[in-house]
Amino acid sequence: MEMKLKPIGIIHSPFQQAAGTPIQPAAAGQAEGRIEVFPDYQAALADLEGFERIWLLYWFDRAVAPKLQVKPFLDDHPRGLFATRAPCRPNPIGISCVEVKKIEANIITVSGIDVLDRTPLLDIKPYVPPFDCFAVQKYGWLQDKQVSGQTADRRFSGKEEKA
Amino acid sequence: MEMKLKPIGIIHSPFQQAAGTPIQPAAAGQAEGRIEVFPDYQAALADLEGFERIWLLYWFDRAVAPKLQVKPFLDDHPRGLFATRAPCRPNPIGISCVEVKKIEANIITVSGIDVLDRTPLLDIKPYVPPFDCFAVQKYGWLQDKQVSGQTADRRFSGKEEKA
Repeated sequence: MEMKLKPIGIIHSPFQQAAGTPIQPAAAGQAEGRIEVFPDYQAALADLEGFERIWLLYWFDRAVAPKLQVKPFLDDHPRGLFATRAPCRPNPIGISCVEVKKIEANIITVSGIDVLDRTPLLDIKPYVPPFDCFAVQKYGWLQDKQVSGQTADRRFSGKEEKA
Repeated sequence: MEMKLKPIGIIHSPFQQAAGTPIQPAAAGQAEGRIEVFPDYQAALADLEGFERIWLLYWFDRAVAPKLQVKPFLDDHPRGLFATRAPCRPNPIGISCVEVKKIEANIITVSGIDVLDRTPLLDIKPYVPPFDCFAVQKYGWLQDKQVSGQTADRRFSGKEEKA
């Protein structure tokens, strides 16, 4: 079976390179992004303005090659890749939950963006607490880390640093 | 840019066809699934047992062709596709947050599975409350819907019904 993706839009953000980009929306604070949805898909945005938050799914187009173990930004120990949110994945798909500020035609303005500028957008899904919000007690090595205000360095970034 | 995916494993579940499959983990209750990660990727599972929940990203391999407006399972009105979690998406990627029961070698046993049996697995990410859990007040047309115990019908399913 062929599994091919096509961009449905482009994520615009203030972040031109990995170094200094927030590692997660939780660390991004009020960083504003502009989600450009290609006009072919504009009709699919109907009803989205009723949602406070949305999921962005996107392609980590500037990540280095996949690794099975990584030293994540928030830790000094190597961790299994699937226990991290690092971008160097076999299928380099990122998910970020961002806040919707406004929707005008095919442009969604969001805050809390943690994505590199010009990242290919793959999908948008509504954030629905009964599906997505679970007050878990246990979240492994990340549990005692301070997330807010953290930014990335160059360890997982490839092309954008060479460009 | 080519964006091609490869399966990293297979999701095994009790659900052979869309009709009757829970529409979300929140509706799946204790339905148990077995996530088979291909041995090539087993090393990437290290440290994952410390997490209570994980995200599964997978390919909706039996969804019908993309539509821009759909009548979702929980509603009688057509809605913009991106304001729904329907599988018939331009890039048919699903995300589900499931509970980890145990991890043995390359097999993760989970509960709350809402995915069709033999679905191609694309990625696993840890569920991290500061990144993923937001107590939003507003979630659009889904806000007044009863989610728990809901199952799908055939409206978005293609091949599996014909098989």
